[in-house]
Amino acid sequence: MFAVEVRDHIMIAHSLPRPVFGPAQGMHGATYVVDAVFFTRDLDEDGLGVDIGAATTVLAEVLKPLNYKNLDEVETFKGRVTTTEVVAKHIFDELAAAVADKRLGPGSHRICRLKITLHESHAARAWYEGDL
Amino acid sequence: MFAVEVRDHIMIAHSLPRPVFGPAQGMHGATYVVDAVFFTRDLDEDGLGVDIGAATTVLAEVLKPLNYKNLDEVETFKGRVTTTEVVAKHIFDELAAAVADKRLGPGSHRICRLKITLHESHAARAWYEGDL
Amino acid sequence: MFAVEVRDHIMIAHSLPRPVFGPAQGMHGATYVVDAVFFTRDLDEDGLGVDIGAATTVLAEVLKPLNYKNLDEVETFKGRVTTTEVVAKHIFDELAAAVADKRLGPGSHRICRLKITLHESHAARAWYEGDL
Amino acid sequence: MFAVEVRDHIMIAHSLPRPVFGPAQGMHGATYVVDAVFFTRDLDEDGLGVDIGAATTVLAEVLKPLNYKNLDEVETFKGRVTTTEVVAKHIFDELAAAVADKRLGPGSHRICRLKITLHESHAARAWYEGDL
Amino acid sequence: MFAVEVRDHIMIAHSLPRPVFGPAQGMHGATYVVDAVFFTRDLDEDGLGVDIGAATTVLAEVLKPLNYKNLDEVETFKGRVTTTEVVAKHIFDELAAAVADKRLGPGSHRICRLKITLHESHAARAWYEGDL
Amino acid sequence: MFAVEVRDHIMIAHSLPRPVFGPAQGMHGATYVVDAVFFTRDLDEDGLGVDIGAATTVLAEVLKPLNYKNLDEVETFKGRVTTTEVVAKHIFDELAAAVADKRLGPGSHRICRLKITLHESHAARAWYEGDL
Repeated sequence: MFAVEVRDHIMIAHSLPRPVFGPAQGMHGATYVVDAVFFTRDLDEDGLGVDIGAATTVLAEVLKPLNYKNLDEVETFKGRVTTTEVVAKHIFDELAAAVADKRLGPGSHRICRLKITLHESHAARAWYEGDL
Repeated sequence: MFAVEVRDHIMIAHSLPRPVFGPAQGMHGATYVVDAVFFTRDLDEDGLGVDIGAATTVLAEVLKPLNYKNLDEVETFKGRVTTTEVVAKHIFDELAAAVADKRLGPGSHRICRLKITLHESHAARAWYEGDL
Repeated sequence: MFAVEVRDHIMIAHSLPRPVFGPAQGMHGATYVVDAVFFTRDLDEDGLGVDIGAATTVLAEVLKPLNYKNLDEVETFKGRVTTTEVVAKHIFDELAAAVADKRLGPGSHRICRLKITLHESHAARAWYEGDL
Repeated sequence: MFAVEVRDHIMIAHSLPRPVFGPAQGMHGATYVVDAVFFTRDLDEDGLGVDIGAATTVLAEVLKPLNYKNLDEVETFKGRVTTTEVVAKHIFDELAAAVADKRLGPGSHRICRLKITLHESHAARAWYEGDL
Repeated sequence: MFAVEVRDHIMIAHSLPRPVFGPAQGMHGATYVVDAVFFTRDLDEDGLGVDIGAATTVLAEVLKPLNYKNLDEVETFKGRVTTTEVVAKHIFDELAAAVADKRLGPGSHRICRLKITLHESHAARAWYEGDL
Repeated sequence: MFAVEVRDHIMIAHSLPRPVFGPAQGMHGATYVVDAVFFTRDLDEDGLGVDIGAATTVLAEVLKPLNYKNLDEVETFKGRVTTTEVVAKHIFDELAAAVADKRLGPGSHRICRLKITLHESHAARAWYEGDL
């Protein structure tokens, strides 16, 4: 299996209003350094799994509606708790839709799996990985 | 598959008294930066795979009996060669037991897989990964 | 010159309500990975510039009132723009006060300089460094 | 599954003479920081998946014919586009051959899987992973 | 002293045709991960040493003529050996000129010092630091 | 000022038999990832501050007597407490002697300053920096 991984980041505010979150129940925030992996079983005739430039562009497009936002006020997250896992799954779903829309170029159909990692500090991260 | 990874570290001494280890046969030591991954197939109603706070606490508890120790004198390793792989497997087994004891909280039963990575330098690391 | 550096982190929300900040004017947030350096000209009789354990403890104490907070509502920042530089200087001042109070142990008087770095992403950081 | 990962690097020039590569069509270059993972289902009687020293040595041997080279002039890549993915697969193939030749020591037969990651910058990497 | 540091990278080819460079005399290449530090003695009324967005933009502008190039064919380096140190000093000079041209915004005159680090691998880097 | 930094590492055991070290009084160990910086005011005619190859070789030579050792039994540390700071200063002194012996090549006399950093974990490091 081939894989191409690109990195970007977002800086968001949110609250986690459930008792389990203790001191994180109030409004606080995070920098999420986001790594997106695109898996393919083979390479195209240019030797590419996915074009790193296209991957970087699409990841930035997917992240833009979240960057510099208060997630408590972002429509897509209304009524949901925006844990790192939930945000990772959201980005996964958005990138999966971008793949389905062939926004990763003519070889988009070869992408068979994605993994989205959100680093929330030097000591903690979460990810969602799944087949397309 | 969802995953949550937390980081801690231990500073240990040990010897590796077998010819294959060459200059590492005598008493020396290592900082092991330890990454523990908890995998779940879904999230709980709070949007959590596993609570990062709980994961950090349990990892620290599992590491405490090893930290600042000479592994040659730690009972659990008597008669064994404490390679990075062996120590990774030991931490895996201890965390698997913690999961079985529901020390990761009420959602412990959802944890289906663990991966324990020990970074022994900027240029080498080892891990053990397995289903629970 | 000797130096000892320890790392911790905080997760905060804030807004930067000035035109120069463009999309960061609204409520958003950041993980600040914080590195605090304690400089000394010599070592004490135990071979220490500053005790890493004490440095870690005092840094955590200084960060605690900021962690999981909305800086817009933290009294000490009222009327100020909480850029990374401003927060770095605040932490510098708090640590300088801790040194003056000998909270870094009996050798606190030997600490002659501090440097506080805030990493706001994998691609940007800011610091304040100065003599005591 | 056990895994041992070692790191090295190469500094190469190449061109990517296809329209898809835009500004990278001309002669340019890269530092590839290379991580090689050796997977084994169990450990040998010395507690090793694979000896880190042997893994480091064999990885260096495999990288040597590429290091400080213009890949456009390296025989093995004639007629091929040397994307990060293609170079990762080449290193995978060379290491797989080294495993088959038992150059990883008497336990080479236990190595059942390899993963070769090439970091081309702080923000992009690619890998090839497969069973032996 | 305040400092703001931003990161970008370039991927270049070059040769180092002097005997001291041994195997690096021929055409090869490097990814240089570039960190640029802008030092100021104080902050402006927005709490900024230098605007991270402006710093990122100007660094990208300065790097663009080098990125994806063969430095042997770049006019500015004709007759010079493009070691990591030489390229760091070149970027320093270009950024110093940008500061003099007030391309870092109205507060450009407050920038009193620059430091430009080029990471050429995980194990080696070089920098040039100087007052303006 | 120009600077060239190279990285290596050592894996050592030691005890810190003073009350201030609490749980670290007994035999334990550390991986020290060692960064050595060589400062020069100018470059030689080959564009070098110091040759990275030579710097790497000399650092490895200086580290070899410490690597895989129990520092409690290393003659040079007899009667001393081998804190990270003390070991950093020892490596500084050894590299300063190497510079004085012109082991960094014909341009050794241009090296005017050294900085030796020992990373003992992902969260703590210490260094010694001084003029030659």
